[in-house]
Order: sequence, then C-alpha cells, then structure tokens
Amino acid sequence: MSKPSVLIVGSLAYDDLEMPSGTFENVLGGAATYSSIAAALFCPVRLVGVIGEDFPEAVLDDLGKRGVDTAGVERAKGKTFRWRGRYSADLGSRTTLDTQLNVFADFRPKIPQAFKSSPYVLLGNIHPALQLEVLAQVERPELVVADTMNFWIGSEAQLLGKVLEKIDLLVINDEEARELTGIHNLVKAAADIRKRGPKHLIIKRGEHGALYFDSDGAFYAPAYPLEDVVDPTGAGDSFAGGLMGYLTRVNTLAHPTMRRAIYFGSALGSFCVEGIGPRRLLDVTRADLAKRMAQFVSLVETGGPVGLPE
Amino acid sequence: MSKPSVLIVGSLAYDDLEMPSGTFENVLGGAATYSSIAAALFCPVRLVGVIGEDFPEAVLDDLGKRGVDTAGVERAKGKTFRWRGRYSADLGSRTTLDTQLNVFADFRPKIPQAFKSSPYVLLGNIHPALQLEVLAQVERPELVVADTMNFWIGSEAQLLGKVLEKIDLLVINDEEARELTGIHNLVKAAADIRKRGPKHLIIKRGEHGALYFDSDGAFYAPAYPLEDVVDPTGAGDSFAGGLMGYLTRVNTLAHPTMRRAIYFGSALGSFCVEGIGPRRLLDVTRADLAKRMAQFVSLVETGGPVGLPE
Repeated sequence: MSKPSVLIVGSLAYDDLEMPSGTFENVLGGAATYSSIAAALFCPVRLVGVIGEDFPEAVLDDLGKRGVDTAGVERAKGKTFRWRGRYSADLGSRTTLDTQLNVFADFRPKIPQAFKSSPYVLLGNIHPALQLEVLAQVERPELVVADTMNFWIGSEAQLLGKVLEKIDLLVINDEEARELTGIHNLVKAAADIRKRGPKHLIIKRGEHGALYFDSDGAFYAPAYPLEDVVDPTGAGDSFAGGLMGYLTRVNTLAHPTMRRAIYFGSALGSFCVEGIGPRRLLDVTRADLAKRMAQFVSLVETGGPVGLPE
Repeated sequence: MSKPSVLIVGSLAYDDLEMPSGTFENVLGGAATYSSIAAALFCPVRLVGVIGEDFPEAVLDDLGKRGVDTAGVERAKGKTFRWRGRYSADLGSRTTLDTQLNVFADFRPKIPQAFKSSPYVLLGNIHPALQLEVLAQVERPELVVADTMNFWIGSEAQLLGKVLEKIDLLVINDEEARELTGIHNLVKAAADIRKRGPKHLIIKRGEHGALYFDSDGAFYAPAYPLEDVVDPTGAGDSFAGGLMGYLTRVNTLAHPTMRRAIYFGSALGSFCVEGIGPRRLLDVTRADLAKRMAQFVSLVETGGPVGLPE
C-alpha cells in the first residue's frame, strides 16, 4: 500500500516584499505553496490551486520532484495572484500595499478524481464558500484542517460557521480566535470555538508559540527562538504544512501525536522565516529538520518530574 | 544545620487597584511582600524593607508565621509607600494614577547582622544605588538575583551597569531587555546582557512565559494558561520569589535546576493573578502548588523524543 497523501487547497502566488533588509520582487508565494513544500518533507502532497500564464513551469517541476502532485493546479488565462507588502522594522507587523487577485478572483477548486479519496485535507485560507466546495467534492477524509483569517470572520461569519461544523481541526491565530468568539481569554475562547465544530483547535501566537486544545486537555509549544528572522512571510502556512505532513505520515490524531505534530509545524515555520520567501524552506533537508527538532525539544524539557522539595 | 535562607530586599506597600471588576483600596502590596510570600513556601525568608506608622502589625505577624523573618523591616515615621493604578479592560496594560513614596522616599536598606551571611539574595526593583548598598553589606552570597525596570534603565544606566557586574541572575521583561540593549531580537539581546555581568538571565514575557539563558543554552517555559485572570499585580514578584525560594531550598544553580525553578516561579505567578492583590497567593498550600506543577509540566510534555517518521 502506498503512503497516505495530504490534499492541500489554497493559493499559489508571487509576492513583492518590502523588507527592512531590502525589496524583493517576484518571490514565489501563496499559502498552498509554503504548506506543500513543508508537508512534502513527510508525505506525498496533492496540490489544488490556480496559476496564471506567467507562472513558470520550472516551479511546478521542482514541486513535482519534491513529491507534490500538481495535477490539481489549474492554469488559467491571465496573471497569477500577486501580493505586495511592507514589513515594519522589527518584522512584527506588515501592511498590504497591493493585492492583485488576477486568476485567483474566479478560482473554483476542482478536485481531480484521483485526489478525492485523500485521507488528510488542508483547506488553506480561502473563501469559506470555496472551502465548503472542496468538502463537497472529497470522500470522507479522516482529518480536515482549515485555516482562516479576520477578513472572513468579519464578512462571512455564517459560511465560516458551516465550515467549522465540518472540520476536525481549526488553525487560527490569537487575534482571530478573539474576533471569532468575542472572548478575550484564549482558554475560554478555545472552549467556545470547539463547541462550534472542530474537536481539535490550534491557536497560533506567532513568535510566542502555539496553544492546542482537544478533549484530552491543553498543550503549549513555544516558537523556536531564532537569532536572525529574515522574513515572516509563509511561516504560518509552513507551520500548517509541516503539521499536516507529519499527521498524514503517522496517520493518527491521538493527543500525544498532535503535540509532536505541532512541534514539527513550528520547526518548519522557524526554517521558513530564516530566508526571503520560501528560499530557506526549499533548502531544508530531513537531517536539518531532525537536528532542529532535537534542539527545539531540549529547549523545553524540564528534565523529569518536577516535585516539590521537602 | 538549618535550611539556607533567602534575603529579600524591596518594597512593602499598599495599593489602590482600579480593576475592570471593581475598585479595591488598601490592598497589601509591594514587590518584596509578594516575593516573600512566594519564597516562604520553600525556605526561610529574611525580609528587608520599610513601612510607615500605618502598616498593621498583624500583617508582619502573619508573615512571621509563614517563615518570613521581618527583623529587617524598618518602621519609619510617616505613611507606607502607596500606589494607585488602573488596569485596562483586558488586564493587558495598566496606568499609574498616583505614587506616594512616603517612607520609601528615604529608604536606605540596612541589613541586620544576622542576615548578612544569607547565601541567596533577591534585590527587588529599587534604585540601583540601593541595590549596590545591599551588596556592600552582605557577605559573599552564592547567588544574587536582581529585578529592575525601564525607569532605572533610562535614568540610571551607569549605576545599573555596576549592578549588572555584581549579580549572577538578572530577571527582566522583554521590553526592558530591548531598552537596556537597544536590540530587538531577544536571543541577541540576551547575549549582550550576559556579557555585561550576569551569567544567568531570565526574560519574562508576561502571559507568554519566560526565556532563560546561561552558558548551557536556552530554555523556554510558558505561562500557565488560566481561564480567569483577576489581577496581574505582583505576578512578576511572585515569580521571582518562587524562583528564589526553590533555588535556595535545593541549593544549586545547575542548568536543569534553573529550568525547574522557572516553572515553580511561573506557577506562583499563576496563583497570584487569580485573586486581587496577594489574596490567592496567601492561600496557596504546598499541595496546591504540587498539583499545579504537575498540570503545568503536562502542558508542555512532548511524550518522549521527537524523531522524524521514516
């Protein structure tokens, strides 16, 4: 039997990044791109998205060599989705300068027949209506993970509510969790979100790590502390991809597995931010990953049970 | 031989707290108060500070029953230090409305003869000149820990530099670390601070936990995620007190011990914020603490080595 695959649906893009270290144009981007590169370190990936006539064949070829099946990447008339953003001096925030949806404006995900039985599905941050369209096309996946963003929380609350009913794991950041629930305390907000559908919930806190909640309790993983953060673009998508790739590979959703999956996701996110766009992520080997994981886990080990001294 | 003691020097105060949940006046406060209550769960405490004529004898009696030797608490003419502050709706920030230094304005710490050989010393957040005066009076402590704040970093940089040269462990928050060094990246800022003197460094990040650095590497401990945060006042001081109490009790500064000490400090901080002022902290039993520590550690356990799946 072949290894289980993960289906990833989302954006492929080109980004123009105005960083404190300089301006970088025509940088390969898109949530699904980052997620696929990260997930492919663990398992075969099936990618569904849309690109324009300007998207280089060589990039698809490279993804293919990494184990990403790009049969679901539709090439449409027009230009690829393009985003231009400027980061603050400390890289802590960013401003969108320009968004050109281009071929992404009319994107309707079509899942190839061969992809429909994928046991693991990652719904990138796209319109909740499109996320629902994907779910209508796939056959009983074991795990559906979705990302979303403030924009959909504000403008498509009802549709997003339907998505939540149908997914197993929601991955959002702390501000989104607060906006979605109207609750500031994250422990309480998590309980509220889990009542709406997803049994599993990850709340990302950027450089402050991630919280995980399921019926077995809570888990906290820090972000890997880096000396040099170059570009945060794609970190969250690399996190989701690494997490999904690991879960797909080990093929279980038990609580301890989720803990390790979050560490793998965070490790991939930490590599991602070390280079402009996906440059560093594209260079990561499994040996690099194993090494970082060891360092990462040693960062939080308490060295055994922590009992009170007499 | 008797158990080793910790010497704690700092403020005793009364606070008026304008919380989202109501206004609470004449609440027992002061950094040294919180630190002493927390540390006393582990080891005998020797407290040095100043109070006014209005400070109730009953509070000193209660501290005494907890194992806090208040022989170094000077009663001066006038009123006790008083602080009035208002917290934001989410408790994430606070504004000082009024500070009445009162007897604290002329405080010059006098270390009683019997306290001078204390092996562990916690210098609360007081004027760096006073921190140096304390160090001039004590005899070769094994560990000196200091807290400080933005105010001294900005106004007394030179004196603070002298303090740094003489201490073993500095406990500050992330913004203070950045202000002290002019470096945004905390890993780099930590290296810079450690070059200035303290071999050990803790950078507190409030609800985001704490980072620790020494020659054996870095360590990260999250904050214990609470459903109900009532009042953050004193959390950092309870952290420092719990940390010092544990270190004093186990009497070693090895890297794994520091990791556990940070967890104990964080656990005490988490109790502190559960009540107005020190109310909850004063009720914490060793059984409560052991239970929270177990829950706390289970929050971050990865369940063994994290290897890459084949």
